[in-house]
Amino acid sequence: MSSPQDEAPGEGNFGVDFVVKYKVPAAERAEAEAGFVQLIEALTAIGLATEVRHGDQESLLVLVKIASADLFAQQVYRARLQDWLHGVRASAPDKDATQALQSEPVTEAERLRLIYLMMTKPKNEGGAGISPSNTKWKHVDAVFPLHNHAFNKAWIKKWSSKYLVDQEDLDVIRDKFGENVAFYFAFLGAYFRFLVVPSALGLGAWLLLGRFSTLYALLCGLWSVIFFEYWKKKEVDLAVQWGVRGVSSIQQSRPEFEWEHETEDAVTGEPVKVYPPLKRVQTQLLQIPFTFACVVALGSLIVTCNSLEVFINEVYNGPGKQYLGFLPTIFLVLGTPTISALLMSAAEKLTAMENYATVDAHDAALIQKQFVLNFMTSYMAPLFTAFVYIPFGHILIPFLEFWRATAQAISFSEKPLPTRKFQINPARITNQMFYFTVTAQIVNFATEVIVPYIKQQAMSKAKEFKTKEKKTYDHEEEAEFLDRVRNECELESYDVSGDYREMVMQFGYLSLFSVAWPLAACCFLVNNWVELRSDALKIAINSRRPIPWRTDSIGPWLTALGFLSWLGSITSAAIVYLCSRSHDGNDGVASQITGWGLLLSILLAEHFYLAAQMAARFILSKLDSPGLQKERKERYATKKKLLGENLGQDVVATPATTSAEKITREALEEEARQTSTRGHGTPEETFWQRQRGEQDTIEVGRRMIEQQAANRADAKKAPSPSKKA
Amino acid sequence: MSSPQDEAPGEGNFGVDFVVKYKVPAAERAEAEAGFVQLIEALTAIGLATEVRHGDQESLLVLVKIASADLFAQQVYRARLQDWLHGVRASAPDKDATQALQSEPVTEAERLRLIYLMMTKPKNEGGAGISPSNTKWKHVDAVFPLHNHAFNKAWIKKWSSKYLVDQEDLDVIRDKFGENVAFYFAFLGAYFRFLVVPSALGLGAWLLLGRFSTLYALLCGLWSVIFFEYWKKKEVDLAVQWGVRGVSSIQQSRPEFEWEHETEDAVTGEPVKVYPPLKRVQTQLLQIPFTFACVVALGSLIVTCNSLEVFINEVYNGPGKQYLGFLPTIFLVLGTPTISALLMSAAEKLTAMENYATVDAHDAALIQKQFVLNFMTSYMAPLFTAFVYIPFGHILIPFLEFWRATAQAISFSEKPLPTRKFQINPARITNQMFYFTVTAQIVNFATEVIVPYIKQQAMSKAKEFKTKEKKTYDHEEEAEFLDRVRNECELESYDVSGDYREMVMQFGYLSLFSVAWPLAACCFLVNNWVELRSDALKIAINSRRPIPWRTDSIGPWLTALGFLSWLGSITSAAIVYLCSRSHDGNDGVASQITGWGLLLSILLAEHFYLAAQMAARFILSKLDSPGLQKERKERYATKKKLLGENLGQDVVATPATTSAEKITREALEEEARQTSTRGHGTPEETFWQRQRGEQDTIEVGRRMIEQQAANRADAKKAPSPSKKA
Repeated sequence: MSSPQDEAPGEGNFGVDFVVKYKVPAAERAEAEAGFVQLIEALTAIGLATEVRHGDQESLLVLVKIASADLFAQQVYRARLQDWLHGVRASAPDKDATQALQSEPVTEAERLRLIYLMMTKPKNEGGAGISPSNTKWKHVDAVFPLHNHAFNKAWIKKWSSKYLVDQEDLDVIRDKFGENVAFYFAFLGAYFRFLVVPSALGLGAWLLLGRFSTLYALLCGLWSVIFFEYWKKKEVDLAVQWGVRGVSSIQQSRPEFEWEHETEDAVTGEPVKVYPPLKRVQTQLLQIPFTFACVVALGSLIVTCNSLEVFINEVYNGPGKQYLGFLPTIFLVLGTPTISALLMSAAEKLTAMENYATVDAHDAALIQKQFVLNFMTSYMAPLFTAFVYIPFGHILIPFLEFWRATAQAISFSEKPLPTRKFQINPARITNQMFYFTVTAQIVNFATEVIVPYIKQQAMSKAKEFKTKEKKTYDHEEEAEFLDRVRNECELESYDVSGDYREMVMQFGYLSLFSVAWPLAACCFLVNNWVELRSDALKIAINSRRPIPWRTDSIGPWLTALGFLSWLGSITSAAIVYLCSRSHDGNDGVASQITGWGLLLSILLAEHFYLAAQMAARFILSKLDSPGLQKERKERYATKKKLLGENLGQDVVATPATTSAEKITREALEEEARQTSTRGHGTPEETFWQRQRGEQDTIEVGRRMIEQQAANRADAKKAPSPSKKA
Repeated sequence: MSSPQDEAPGEGNFGVDFVVKYKVPAAERAEAEAGFVQLIEALTAIGLATEVRHGDQESLLVLVKIASADLFAQQVYRARLQDWLHGVRASAPDKDATQALQSEPVTEAERLRLIYLMMTKPKNEGGAGISPSNTKWKHVDAVFPLHNHAFNKAWIKKWSSKYLVDQEDLDVIRDKFGENVAFYFAFLGAYFRFLVVPSALGLGAWLLLGRFSTLYALLCGLWSVIFFEYWKKKEVDLAVQWGVRGVSSIQQSRPEFEWEHETEDAVTGEPVKVYPPLKRVQTQLLQIPFTFACVVALGSLIVTCNSLEVFINEVYNGPGKQYLGFLPTIFLVLGTPTISALLMSAAEKLTAMENYATVDAHDAALIQKQFVLNFMTSYMAPLFTAFVYIPFGHILIPFLEFWRATAQAISFSEKPLPTRKFQINPARITNQMFYFTVTAQIVNFATEVIVPYIKQQAMSKAKEFKTKEKKTYDHEEEAEFLDRVRNECELESYDVSGDYREMVMQFGYLSLFSVAWPLAACCFLVNNWVELRSDALKIAINSRRPIPWRTDSIGPWLTALGFLSWLGSITSAAIVYLCSRSHDGNDGVASQITGWGLLLSILLAEHFYLAAQMAARFILSKLDSPGLQKERKERYATKKKLLGENLGQDVVATPATTSAEKITREALEEEARQTSTRGHGTPEETFWQRQRGEQDTIEVGRRMIEQQAANRADAKKAPSPSKKA
């Protein structure tokens, strides 16, 4: 292994790998000081070197690096062997540890991940057991690696000047930020590239076919199937290429996990902590009322606000209409986050109660619940418009009447409110889609990148101003570096699941509703070009450097994508059927809508979807993926090498047929000799010695053929008299 | 390896492994004789011992066994190594070949399979290249192993006296007849056991709910989902237990395969023969017109005969009704096999044109086409009754009118035919189901077991009579054995796919139509108890011993099962909806039937099916299967062993934390020493040497904490004046 300096994250970081922000609250000074001593001792004990510097007024910064390169090299080698043992790596690392590290150098991501694991693993597994969630380490505020600023600058510069993200870019991200982040960018890149197809389709449909086109719906459904199946395959391929396939099965355990008993792992024989799965299932059943609560709470809010909005915009015709129009939006903007936050905290409690053993399982369960929430907040309004307002607008009349009565009551006026006749506005769904695809994405970009940037700049300026007053204790040559470290301390930690959520929800709009506004994909295409870069900016500038976790998939989001793609086949068909038929219904009831027509469109669309899925799976299964091929090749090569080492090449090669005959003859002669010395032999031996060797058999066979011919000749003569008789 | 005698198939067989029936037609005597010499030479060359005996009047029997046990042991060992290389075996065989064969003895099936492969493999792969399909060996009529009569007798006896087939029975069959046959019995056994559930459900439904019960349809659909998913899992498990998982990927190549170019296998680097897949797809597209032809030809035959039957049984009321009733059946009995045979030969030609590289792929493609045929002949009649006759009987009236007119014309009589008013008979589907579940199964049993047995007895008696006249050339002690061999020569070779077909079609009746006659499952339960034994009898008595091929699945039948299970969810729902509503419609039109009602039942039923499938898959994926667990354990153990051998145990064990500190301190001291000797050092070195070692850091940290406290104290004093200001 080369010296740690070469692999340290950035030259400007003085070789610092990790920073521990240690709080020293004035009130708990003595306790914090004792804890600090323990912290330094614990870090030194696992082979880390430490330096301490001032943080802000109430914290210290403990800077950490690997003390001994050799010791760390051992750690790396051991980790790789464990990977191989658990089937994550296809080939075992070289027998010679030094050789192994040279042929496959340690990446920044691997280095940081292993150091983090050393710091956080429990003591009995060889770590220091430092985890902010542990009460013993309650003053440890954060443990994070330092950004590699030189790399980040180059990265942002490179990406802002090229169109597409290629494999090489992904590999670089993987080396710096780990597979967890790299998978997000890989997904986003693939999705961006695939979006070109529905964009073109959408543009064509918009120009030639208008909204609610069956052809567009079918092609878009087909596209979503192909994209989904492609990504499933691509994901496996990437995991293999990055050597992380199956890594989700050996993911880190959750410190909060409460186990009931211990058993032995059936495969590895290692002890495993177990929580009875049936007990967990019982808790999981609570997800049903939870989902129900989400649907009722958010659904009724959205339906209420929507019907109010319909009333104000399309029925009410009195004074202040332009201001009142904002009322439902204000209700929504205030109500949704409140209810969401309530439900979200319920989801978190529920997930904690489900008591998962690994961080991954826990996160997946939480994301699943969040998805229900997101689904409601994102899609409920267009679903309401598409399936209630446009086709069956007349059933809204009692609602509208209710609003009218309420408004009448509020206005305290005796004369009736100025209203006009309610008329369905089929453009409503298009307007909604426009809002979700354009307005919301721009707002999102602002809140995600611009606002945090401004906030951070302002805060650091304020801090600078504040600390300028004080005397600084930093050494001159470190001052700039330590400023940077203190800055990074202030940043939010990066959570990739938020970015995934955004993309998956976007995919959902495309799959579920784009038939109502085919230009959606074009907007998403533009948005995602920016998104790809703004997410890079977010990681590089607005967040702490993430722990480079490994992963072999986009995890629970894959299920969500599949679900949205399937649901899209149904909603698209239904929207096409319901909305394209309701244009001419003037009484608010589209009379041409029949139950069997709707059901038939859904039935056909869904079967088209399922058939396309089967076809796509079949075809993709026939194509060999480079990653899997590489893996198989490696496994084969490993085995062949082992064979060669242990057995010599000759056994594997095809048999030498020429020698077989000789051996056979020798064997036969030997056998014959043995039998004759033993005397008469068993019936079996007698049987096989009637014809000794090849020549005997051939001779006897020839005689038999002759005999049969003779028999036939006899038979020809013989039967003739019997025939006469 | 023990001596070959111990493993020879049956003591009564004189250690004979294989019999080659060699034809010597009178007209081609010289050619056949030359071929015979070549045959013996070829067999000897690959290490087989031969004896020749008289066959019937125009053939010789070449009896074959392994000449050298050592040479064969090498073959076995090499084959097992190849299996491991290709990933079929989880663990490599022991390094020491003798040890490997002792710890895992060669079964009869393995022995016979390897000998057969030796005989049939092309010469460049070390075999003799003897294949009946090769023109060079056109006089080789058959190559088959001899039955182990002692085993067969014990087997039949054992099975006739026990209820269920257990794992041990399957293992025995696998050892004697190979995985191909064992998988069939495993499937049949599992299916038989699972049938208990729908039998109970059906009986209950029959007694309490009557026909067309929604509850029964749902439960039966659920059952079929669970059975299908269970079997998919069980299949993998069995394959792992029998060490054949993935064996389908290295199956034997088809001698008739025509390749266009050769490439290198991407994984193993071995040369592979390639036929362009796109060309094959082009040929495969012909399956569409083929399917169309099947549907039209068989469909129109069945619909014609069915409507004729309806006419005769339910409309015609004239003389000879009881005889005329047989007319459509006669047409069907004559027409179906004729058309089927035509289509079947088309299917065979089509499959040959598709030019598959392996026997398995070829067989699967053929079975797929046969399945279309079988589907039509088996299910068309009940489908017609359930979806046309019962709900929409009135649309048959033109047909019936046509038959009336035809009959009138044929009768040459002026007075109108005596007819009665057409009335739909809802019991028709039940009658049909009764026919398929009871009558047809009994007829089938007779044709499958009893008829061949009688035929064979008669034929061998006739032969005996014929040959009694002639002088026999057999040695006295061999006479009985050779009679047996000649008998086995006359038998049909066993084809497991016929048996699979029977069971899969039966599953189809259950899944598609049992809602019309819930007792179906009970009949199948009884039938399959007999079937299990009669199939054993068929193999043991009525067929030549099959070549013990390996396989890791029931192959294309799995797809067929899945398809029937899915289709069943739709047909059951539709039958329930259509037939339960048509009872009271007296005019032949069931007026309560609505399009949306039908579509809704189908939609709900299918989604119930899909949801149940997802749930079953999810739950089954959580359960670990013993086979897979065993495999993983073996792989893990192999790796661990390799590690231990190559690296020593210490690397795998958890790190010794106690030594880490010492190393760290030493490393730090060493580093410090180096820097001091080198002089000033880089900025990084300076940075990390500000605090030398643990104690320094702790000391400095403490001072900083104190300083911060002092700052706070200062700050408390300081800001107060500014507040005042």
